[in-house]
Amino acid sequence: MAMGPVAIVGVGMMGGSLGLALTERAGVEVRGWDADADALAEAGERGAVVPAPSLDAAIADAKAVFLAAPVGRLAELAGDVLASSGPDVVVSDLGSAKAAVVAPLGAGQRDRFIGGHPICGNERAGVGAARSDLFAGATWFLTPSPEAEPTLLERLHRIIASVGARPVAIDPGVHDDLMAIVSHLPHALAGALMAQAADTAPEGREALRSAGPSFSDLTRIAGANPPMWADILIANRGAVLAALGDYAGRLADVAEALENRDRDWVERFFATAAAGRSRLLDVGGEDGDAPWQLIVAVPDRPGAISEIVTVLGHAHINIDDLTLRPGDGAGELDLLLAGEDAASAAQGALAERGFAATLGPVG
Amino acid sequence: MAMGPVAIVGVGMMGGSLGLALTERAGVEVRGWDADADALAEAGERGAVVPAPSLDAAIADAKAVFLAAPVGRLAELAGDVLASSGPDVVVSDLGSAKAAVVAPLGAGQRDRFIGGHPICGNERAGVGAARSDLFAGATWFLTPSPEAEPTLLERLHRIIASVGARPVAIDPGVHDDLMAIVSHLPHALAGALMAQAADTAPEGREALRSAGPSFSDLTRIAGANPPMWADILIANRGAVLAALGDYAGRLADVAEALENRDRDWVERFFATAAAGRSRLLDVGGEDGDAPWQLIVAVPDRPGAISEIVTVLGHAHINIDDLTLRPGDGAGELDLLLAGEDAASAAQGALAERGFAATLGPVG
Repeated sequence: MAMGPVAIVGVGMMGGSLGLALTERAGVEVRGWDADADALAEAGERGAVVPAPSLDAAIADAKAVFLAAPVGRLAELAGDVLASSGPDVVVSDLGSAKAAVVAPLGAGQRDRFIGGHPICGNERAGVGAARSDLFAGATWFLTPSPEAEPTLLERLHRIIASVGARPVAIDPGVHDDLMAIVSHLPHALAGALMAQAADTAPEGREALRSAGPSFSDLTRIAGANPPMWADILIANRGAVLAALGDYAGRLADVAEALENRDRDWVERFFATAAAGRSRLLDVGGEDGDAPWQLIVAVPDRPGAISEIVTVLGHAHINIDDLTLRPGDGAGELDLLLAGEDAASAAQGALAERGFAATLGPVG
Repeated sequence: MAMGPVAIVGVGMMGGSLGLALTERAGVEVRGWDADADALAEAGERGAVVPAPSLDAAIADAKAVFLAAPVGRLAELAGDVLASSGPDVVVSDLGSAKAAVVAPLGAGQRDRFIGGHPICGNERAGVGAARSDLFAGATWFLTPSPEAEPTLLERLHRIIASVGARPVAIDPGVHDDLMAIVSHLPHALAGALMAQAADTAPEGREALRSAGPSFSDLTRIAGANPPMWADILIANRGAVLAALGDYAGRLADVAEALENRDRDWVERFFATAAAGRSRLLDVGGEDGDAPWQLIVAVPDRPGAISEIVTVLGHAHINIDDLTLRPGDGAGELDLLLAGEDAASAAQGALAERGFAATLGPVG
């Protein structure tokens, strides 16, 4: 794919992996910058990025800039990079909390800043742990604002698809609420359980080690990067507090049932959880479906493209490819979707929001 | 090893696995009984047990009886089996909560009933999921009362070692408190998280499925056998309520820190958990140690043997083999331990409780 250079600011495990993936899988020229000179040099030696002598030099000719810094520093960094880059440069990030990054930006900055969050990673930190296949098959959330420039969204979508990830547009608040429950709260739960076990059985190491798989499962993530997780919980504190409050109420219900020796309630509690887990694991068989094309008429008003991709993201419909065809005033958006069912569902979801679309098989 | 027949009451996954292990690995004759005639027949077809025509017939000539029934029925079943079996029969169980089984027994029954709990299992139920290697390398907790008959404890220890498990004696209350934290509470935590996610994102299956490894880790056990886990939580309700109360306090601390935007507290919280996890994973290298023998002088008073093995269990010292040498009044207990360090630590722990022991390498 013909694509201008990409800049990555922050070359740890995530930034380094993106650099490797873009270089090796997509043949893109990648320039890197990191305030830590040793990390930058190591990323250069690994071939993840071409080290730049400064942040400005890294982003000078870039068509896209990815911010892979700690989540607590992303908002300020985004402002700096937007101020230093030209009007045709899309700026994105890889942070786990999106509203905290997007909200401080002005409307005049949200045309070029489109938040992102790839759902992948590993337990190790630093560019030494980077892998070019980290993003293969991973969901990569995007949170375009209504102000997002359509051509920049298209470019970002394509770059992300080029490393093997599946871009999914989603509202920043919906993203943060979801992550609070499925990622940020679990880290708090694991940490609290680990600390409780350590406090309660300080000499019980051998016993703990014999404790079977449930404890191991629940505390596997308790060892993850403490500064990073502190940043993430603080950045998403509103959603995490709401999730913690809800969760505490559920535990109080369990305690009440035990106080009342209400065995039937406890069995229903576990049965509900088991049913929820079964539904979650009931994978739909869409992967083998033939590609269908959905052509959406795009009204000539700001935010239409962002709205279209977000409608599909919220409907859990993956967009395999996205192409803009500008017209006179209004244009067309060509979407490639997996199978007739997905294309038809997309058409329906868009019609509810007033977008007309036609569909048909590809080829 | 020459050993009389063993009876297993309840031939599901656990009872069936014990039957297979005793038959195939230890060459022991195993008689089985189950109120479910189909399950009993299937266990017979699999070679896990020789089906008996009645509970009384199963235990008639047995030297040891293992109760592998649901935990809610164990106390009553233990009373029945003790009443129907002779004075030289040791009765044990495989339940996850011990005080609820042991406490209802009279002192005259606790000489022959020694509670047990192997720390292993799998997610499937029924004898079809039984495996002869289920117990290999697993900790098998034993909770001998002071009244426990030493020769019966020795026999039980040997039977358990013969299927590849590591018997560890422990006080029933200590066992129940430990299991509340490392097993019973985790199941409640996983269930509550799964239910919260299902309630909050009822149409978010695709998004949940993309949620990364932390949610999967935390909810893997949420699908486990609801009636069994209801029984276990009710059976161990006192310890589980205490663990839930402590845990709720820890979550409240996290919430307070987030309310106060106290990032440093949150980082310390995660760092404490990470340190706890590292200590837990810091495995001692005792496996390759040469066997040492510890010979303990056993005072001629009730409960001495139970106390000795429980002292070592609480000190996390594994007993590889245990032999009683009755003397005139007082006797000797020969213990085989892994390495000089373990033997020396055992000698010290026993000396603190007034037991004299001599040690030396084997052979």
